[in-house]
Amino acid sequence: MLSESSVRLGTARSVIRELFEYGKTRAAEVGAENVFDFSLGNPSVEPPAEVTETALRLLRESDPVAIHGYTSAQGDAAVREKLAASLNRRFAANCGPDDLYVCTGAAGALCGTLHGLACPGDEFVVFAPFFPEYRVFIEKTGAAVRVVPPQPADFQIDFDALASVLSPRTKGVLVNSPNNPSGAVYSRETLTRLAALLSERAAAYGHPIYLISDEPYREVVYDGFAAPWIPSLYRDTVVCYSFSKSLSLPGERLGYVFVPKGCGGGEPVLAAVAGASRAMGYVSAPSLFQRVCAECCDLTADLSVYAANRRLLLDGLRACGFTCVEPGGTFYLFPQTLEPDDRAFCEAAKRLDLLLVPGSGFGCPGHARLSYCVPTARVERALPVFEKLARLYR
Amino acid sequence: MLSESSVRLGTARSVIRELFEYGKTRAAEVGAENVFDFSLGNPSVEPPAEVTETALRLLRESDPVAIHGYTSAQGDAAVREKLAASLNRRFAANCGPDDLYVCTGAAGALCGTLHGLACPGDEFVVFAPFFPEYRVFIEKTGAAVRVVPPQPADFQIDFDALASVLSPRTKGVLVNSPNNPSGAVYSRETLTRLAALLSERAAAYGHPIYLISDEPYREVVYDGFAAPWIPSLYRDTVVCYSFSKSLSLPGERLGYVFVPKGCGGGEPVLAAVAGASRAMGYVSAPSLFQRVCAECCDLTADLSVYAANRRLLLDGLRACGFTCVEPGGTFYLFPQTLEPDDRAFCEAAKRLDLLLVPGSGFGCPGHARLSYCVPTARVERALPVFEKLARLYR
Repeated sequence: MLSESSVRLGTARSVIRELFEYGKTRAAEVGAENVFDFSLGNPSVEPPAEVTETALRLLRESDPVAIHGYTSAQGDAAVREKLAASLNRRFAANCGPDDLYVCTGAAGALCGTLHGLACPGDEFVVFAPFFPEYRVFIEKTGAAVRVVPPQPADFQIDFDALASVLSPRTKGVLVNSPNNPSGAVYSRETLTRLAALLSERAAAYGHPIYLISDEPYREVVYDGFAAPWIPSLYRDTVVCYSFSKSLSLPGERLGYVFVPKGCGGGEPVLAAVAGASRAMGYVSAPSLFQRVCAECCDLTADLSVYAANRRLLLDGLRACGFTCVEPGGTFYLFPQTLEPDDRAFCEAAKRLDLLLVPGSGFGCPGHARLSYCVPTARVERALPVFEKLARLYR
Repeated sequence: MLSESSVRLGTARSVIRELFEYGKTRAAEVGAENVFDFSLGNPSVEPPAEVTETALRLLRESDPVAIHGYTSAQGDAAVREKLAASLNRRFAANCGPDDLYVCTGAAGALCGTLHGLACPGDEFVVFAPFFPEYRVFIEKTGAAVRVVPPQPADFQIDFDALASVLSPRTKGVLVNSPNNPSGAVYSRETLTRLAALLSERAAAYGHPIYLISDEPYREVVYDGFAAPWIPSLYRDTVVCYSFSKSLSLPGERLGYVFVPKGCGGGEPVLAAVAGASRAMGYVSAPSLFQRVCAECCDLTADLSVYAANRRLLLDGLRACGFTCVEPGGTFYLFPQTLEPDDRAFCEAAKRLDLLLVPGSGFGCPGHARLSYCVPTARVERALPVFEKLARLYR
């Protein structure tokens, strides 16, 4: 009598959330310093000081009726001007304020985009490993999900596998680089090849294939890596962004959709995003933080703690025998598990109070995700526990 | 090649928005004091001082990682505790924190609720006049909209019309009291009769009929009127609330869904709302304002300017010959137009720089909406212009 899929989604317990709750319970029993929780991807560094200063200034100095009032449905015009200018400065994006739809987090951006694009019978392609909500978001539109299996050697794209999954039904391909959970950053070579394949197929099928780029980790990239600006490589790109990671503001749910000029070859893509967002009740994203993010959009939080944790963990895990692709970005590490059954492996880790997320949930069995947005002291104390875990498998 | 309905929704220009833009252009030509814009329902009074103080205090004194971090999907537990306590204090609501889903505005609340309830073939009933987005929200679920015609004598419910619209396909009935655009507040008698009819039909059909109560104007009620607490009158009620009007914070998009215990006779209604919200990307509503609204949820902005405007306009309009139901709440007046064609009437008003919204868009031709959340001086200056307008029809 209720929407069955909704009840199922609302009742299913998230593995990550359950681990997190377990960690809290366990910390009460054995002490917080003896529980090594690497489960949650909640940024652990403070927002830039300018974020707090800007919020305080706006609250103190602006007309409260204006600052807390509805903005236009697609976001305050001055906010969109600032966001566009930043994209143009940093990526030569040729972005105008009317090419942006400001929205409630990357989830809102993705849902607005997917619902705006999807027609009956459509398919969207995702690459394993992938954020599990992608499946939920895509299926809600009525479209089907096609999964490209992982390429565990480097977590770039397995192009043979992709080629066999594309079809005239393909409406879009969803990429997430830097990637949650693998940390991989698609190289320029990967993206160029992807663009060529999609262009070729789009021409063959006689309709655009949209490349939906979910990039909340765009600025979380480490020395020696670079995340190319995808719209410069492929015309039919839609960028879904969130300030959650770059400004350490996940709870404020501020993001945007950017539809580059010419995207879709003249199709009214931004109008479709706006209409779909409207039909789901997403208009006029939270007003104060629209302004705050616009003022601070060229900044990032101090991400050096993530860099330090990444180095420690990568070296430490490799030293005790783990195989792990070096992550180019994000705050995740995605090592192979020491037994094929990643759930069993994570249970073994849990018995040592080491909380890791099985890769199966991301469509990539035989791996586990570690979120290292944690205090460095926790990483240091955890290294001997990883060694203990590895010894169980020698 | 894109979602047709989305493109249509994203391209359609809102009558209200167009009027508002026209008003700004016209103000530049003839001076702001000579344009009488009554088009937009954006609160014009400041939030209570405590709102700004609470936001400032949280920003200065709290751990920014905590205050801007993800909350649980259904809202921070301490926030839900406070909201529940307030409902219990004010309405004896028997609400626990797990009966609430905190969400992004009333639009998010309604969409989560509708998608959580809707099954293929379902119908939802709305009463004219109604907020036009109801149709958009309901149709997005795949369900059909059934409209009960207005009862213009008092804008209570035409029960014969309702009785003929209910059917075994009816999943829910959407009420909005105090009402946008009529300002009508359903009396206890109306709601009791509604509850009796719905209970009788639910029993006959063998399934619950949900009463979805969209009540962002709950606290905007004038002397001599009262808005009864609907869950106390009908078990299968789902309350959709927003702080936009009570705290004058429309742009912050903070609201909640309340599912009373026993609602649906044991159906997992809140889980359905949570799952549907998740599938549309609505989880963890904006975190700072979750806390601010929870701290301030017993307060209201100073609504006395609305009361003053209402009195002036109601008396002034009646004096020059308008027929108008006395509004019990909101900041809208919904007089009959002086010619049957409300669009033509509003065009005539526009030629006098008086900006009113035709009732047709709300499913109620022959009427026009005035939003009186404007400075009282504008109301005073507008009264002679209403007189001039009325003279055209004598």
